Amino acid sequence: MDYQPILDKIRKEIEVYAHEGKQADYIPALARVNPDQFGLCLNTLDGKTYRLGDSATKFSIQSISKVFSLAIALSIMGKDLWQRMAKEPSGSAFNSLVQLEYEHGIPRNPFINAGALVSADVLLSNLDDPEAFYLNFVRTISGNPTIDYSDEVAQSEQSCSYLNASIAYLLKHHGNLHNDVNQVLHLYCRMCSLEMSCEDLSRAFMAFAKSNEPFSHAGVNLTISRVKRINAIMQTCGFYDEAGEFSFLVGLPGKSGVGGGIVAIYPSRYSIAVWSPRLNAKGNSIMGMKALELFTSETEESIF
Amino acid sequence: MDYQPILDKIRKEIEVYAHEGKQADYIPALARVNPDQFGLCLNTLDGKTYRLGDSATKFSIQSISKVFSLAIALSIMGKDLWQRMAKEPSGSAFNSLVQLEYEHGIPRNPFINAGALVSADVLLSNLDDPEAFYLNFVRTISGNPTIDYSDEVAQSEQSCSYLNASIAYLLKHHGNLHNDVNQVLHLYCRMCSLEMSCEDLSRAFMAFAKSNEPFSHAGVNLTISRVKRINAIMQTCGFYDEAGEFSFLVGLPGKSGVGGGIVAIYPSRYSIAVWSPRLNAKGNSIMGMKALELFTSETEESIF
Amino acid sequence: MDYQPILDKIRKEIEVYAHEGKQADYIPALARVNPDQFGLCLNTLDGKTYRLGDSATKFSIQSISKVFSLAIALSIMGKDLWQRMAKEPSGSAFNSLVQLEYEHGIPRNPFINAGALVSADVLLSNLDDPEAFYLNFVRTISGNPTIDYSDEVAQSEQSCSYLNASIAYLLKHHGNLHNDVNQVLHLYCRMCSLEMSCEDLSRAFMAFAKSNEPFSHAGVNLTISRVKRINAIMQTCGFYDEAGEFSFLVGLPGKSGVGGGIVAIYPSRYSIAVWSPRLNAKGNSIMGMKALELFTSETEESIF
Amino acid sequence: MDYQPILDKIRKEIEVYAHEGKQADYIPALARVNPDQFGLCLNTLDGKTYRLGDSATKFSIQSISKVFSLAIALSIMGKDLWQRMAKEPSGSAFNSLVQLEYEHGIPRNPFINAGALVSADVLLSNLDDPEAFYLNFVRTISGNPTIDYSDEVAQSEQSCSYLNASIAYLLKHHGNLHNDVNQVLHLYCRMCSLEMSCEDLSRAFMAFAKSNEPFSHAGVNLTISRVKRINAIMQTCGFYDEAGEFSFLVGLPGKSGVGGGIVAIYPSRYSIAVWSPRLNAKGNSIMGMKALELFTSETEESIF
Repeated sequence: MDYQPILDKIRKEIEVYAHEGKQADYIPALARVNPDQFGLCLNTLDGKTYRLGDSATKFSIQSISKVFSLAIALSIMGKDLWQRMAKEPSGSAFNSLVQLEYEHGIPRNPFINAGALVSADVLLSNLDDPEAFYLNFVRTISGNPTIDYSDEVAQSEQSCSYLNASIAYLLKHHGNLHNDVNQVLHLYCRMCSLEMSCEDLSRAFMAFAKSNEPFSHAGVNLTISRVKRINAIMQTCGFYDEAGEFSFLVGLPGKSGVGGGIVAIYPSRYSIAVWSPRLNAKGNSIMGMKALELFTSETEESIF
Repeated sequence: MDYQPILDKIRKEIEVYAHEGKQADYIPALARVNPDQFGLCLNTLDGKTYRLGDSATKFSIQSISKVFSLAIALSIMGKDLWQRMAKEPSGSAFNSLVQLEYEHGIPRNPFINAGALVSADVLLSNLDDPEAFYLNFVRTISGNPTIDYSDEVAQSEQSCSYLNASIAYLLKHHGNLHNDVNQVLHLYCRMCSLEMSCEDLSRAFMAFAKSNEPFSHAGVNLTISRVKRINAIMQTCGFYDEAGEFSFLVGLPGKSGVGGGIVAIYPSRYSIAVWSPRLNAKGNSIMGMKALELFTSETEESIF
Repeated sequence: MDYQPILDKIRKEIEVYAHEGKQADYIPALARVNPDQFGLCLNTLDGKTYRLGDSATKFSIQSISKVFSLAIALSIMGKDLWQRMAKEPSGSAFNSLVQLEYEHGIPRNPFINAGALVSADVLLSNLDDPEAFYLNFVRTISGNPTIDYSDEVAQSEQSCSYLNASIAYLLKHHGNLHNDVNQVLHLYCRMCSLEMSCEDLSRAFMAFAKSNEPFSHAGVNLTISRVKRINAIMQTCGFYDEAGEFSFLVGLPGKSGVGGGIVAIYPSRYSIAVWSPRLNAKGNSIMGMKALELFTSETEESIF
Repeated sequence: MDYQPILDKIRKEIEVYAHEGKQADYIPALARVNPDQFGLCLNTLDGKTYRLGDSATKFSIQSISKVFSLAIALSIMGKDLWQRMAKEPSGSAFNSLVQLEYEHGIPRNPFINAGALVSADVLLSNLDDPEAFYLNFVRTISGNPTIDYSDEVAQSEQSCSYLNASIAYLLKHHGNLHNDVNQVLHLYCRMCSLEMSCEDLSRAFMAFAKSNEPFSHAGVNLTISRVKRINAIMQTCGFYDEAGEFSFLVGLPGKSGVGGGIVAIYPSRYSIAVWSPRLNAKGNSIMGMKALELFTSETEESIF
């Protein structure tokens, strides 16, 4: 199947949304991004690559990093990781403290901030140089050695993220962070600050799209069953409190970030990444969501 | 592929769970059920049927009825239905009032009790004889004209379900029930009281497994896109606050009921129903959950 | 001390608030009331009575009834009553279901709707004719045999109060209502519908102002200690989620109703009732609150 | 009136509670305290002082410090302080984050930790040397120049109070802390660490008992109206989620601390401080609560 004509058609259809919403502006480096960009990259398991627009432009991956850190943490701890976090949809915003307080410091899932802070804590406790390990891992699965952290984004993020600090101290209060809070926040912000293009992300997530192969990249090893389970969590929890909506409209497991990126996979078939900085009220890219919705509608290829 | 050897093997493996948990006992008719039963029926799209144990024994479908009433309500109202309920995981128990109060009477999804009460209200507003219509619809998609309501279960349920009455009045307070509360509760309890076997349920859900065909049965018509979306909601919301766990362990869209039944589908491949009355703390069948988890592990056929 | 000059001065000062807010309009009988009325009556323990404006006009006492029903329920059950409700401020709206769900059907205090429904239930379980008993009790402590229920208000209230029905069924679900829900709602609405003037209310609450005398009126008997404790609960819980504000501004125990009435007492000194139908966002009379604030400021007679 | 015989009698009656509960043990310095101590000191406005037991032993005042810091903050900011915190009972535990999140960083009242952190922030923004100012203020109103901070308690507290750090960062996130979080936490912990005896506290709170005199001590000046309002807040919010219970049982405005101290006042009549380290589940001194309950019962002198 040649997906290019479908992608070209979608590009035209989503143009009407080109000026809706606005980009994240809570740190200067994100606020400075030109919001009128759109990129897409699709990789299929039979080896083809399709591109649209700014597919090679790097952007801040933000929460998409939570999938990578989960993969590493799960490789380290195996199913014991689930003693420290659950895998249920939160039903509330990604940064809510309410549930975390009621549930005594056990995050609902690895894709809310609290869960990703626990993943960062696992990396800190078990790796000699977690920053280097993480970077090497992402470079390897993306096949792009130029991927790097943004010092500016990481620093801004850490210095202004009082809410993440609040969450981290609540985890610490409940004994669910073993390292120094500032170290955990530092690593978390570094991981979020990674800059990747749609092409990089699409290639990286091929590792999850190949869900019938064990996952083994740069020292991170997961069984088939664990890869499938990461995909299941992306399906139910990948979009904050819009997970149901994304599942309903797009029908694929995926993960979004406030940098405007979204990556989704069709197991055993393809990996697709889109990027456009303007966000809806839930913090997900408007053009990105729409492009993916149209893509699975046009191709009739949702997993359902 | 011949699934029978796998099913036989699973039957043996789950025997260790045969006496864990206990059946629902909040009404006498459910409490009286022999808890030591187990049935399973699998129908594939290529026309084969596999069975285990008490696959022909009828039981109370309870919340599985919510999928049928959603299909009817969606056929009636189309996407306008989503003005009256959302499609996000609730992150809380199926009968919680908290979220419903905070969210001004808009249920989180059609598979919590509040959402199913709204579906019942839609049927009451739009059908001459909703009870007859519903029964005819289920009989048709199951291909079994002997399926019927249990008067005893429906009556017990209505007379003791103070919590459902509380939810219904809260919906009414927010203007999200248009009919008399007692009528809505009556219809809701009738629909939950339906008695079906695993064979009936597995056949009925073939209509959802065939997600690339428009849904058209006994006056209920849905587009392919809407069938897929019902499946997506089963995936994210079908198991109360254990939806993530089910998605994680089983990896299929499905729906459970406190009668001990669970039905799940693999789109374009099969429909499978299991039943065993003993429940876990979340109200889902212990042996049923385990059987499905083993089935997708053994066959490596989760949708992820 | 002659309070009349102070009261006259206050009357002038509050005139600027005369058109702020609007009256309760959720039932026709309340919506029809002329909102531009103001009455006040003050009775001192040394036997003097002071009046302002529409002090003899009867109005719907609404939630002020909760003090009367608490006095009767406490007379019947003594401290066992506190097994069925707490006496802590709720920190939330008077009709919230959230806390009641988290706290398993034990109302926070007798002055939120849930608590008053439990009081009504106690009356139903223990009195032959609770409506007649309640009416006789209020007539006796007010010294006014013409006080009566408003059939119209009671009927409108019951037929439209879906939220109270929701609360009542949640109580029933938790086993904290022993009588039929409709009977409880009926009695609750009757008691709220009572019509009294500021003169009636001020006289009635002299029974609480005389907190160093045992309470004994028309078959209702309370020790000194219990009278003081009812006063303490009025102080901390008498004004929904504005209890702190009232305590802060006025400094007296009291109780308000959405009919626009407020009654407050200075133990061992006086009882004061005000009425004006226009309400603030919290459901308390604007002119009434202001008049009482000015009164305790001018007289420097807050209990603090 | 000679209170000594009543106090002696009470001392005997509360002996049965002498071994119930246990002291706070979350920091070593508090855990080391001999739990089997009891002290009481009563000062009347007519100049008499009564004592029981360990009335001269100093202990950690902990949350009682919140009254002193509120008085200073209110003296600095006047009613503008109420833009930054409310004065309603919280209805939840003293350290809950839930309400603070829902209410966008505005603490419910000055006596929960969040509110006291805001008070500390006000001191930091407006005083050259807040620690010295605070200490001088407390020494002056207590008439005891030997009162001092406990370095050990303050340091332990700050280094282990992850929950307070979580609260502080949430306040900072909502823009309701203007100073560096660590500085605020440092000052807060210092103020809590103050060590005073029942005699010191009873004398200090005479400033609040004299509610018909303007408050003017060591640079802190409040009108009569503001003194009364601080008393009103002690009444409704002084005992965490046991404020209603204390008001009900004791009937006086007061404030407790987890060091086991409780201080209460009868406006225009007396100030009373009790101390005993063993706490109930709500964090209030068991013998202290009981002694005060008996005292107002015996003397029939609750403000109600």
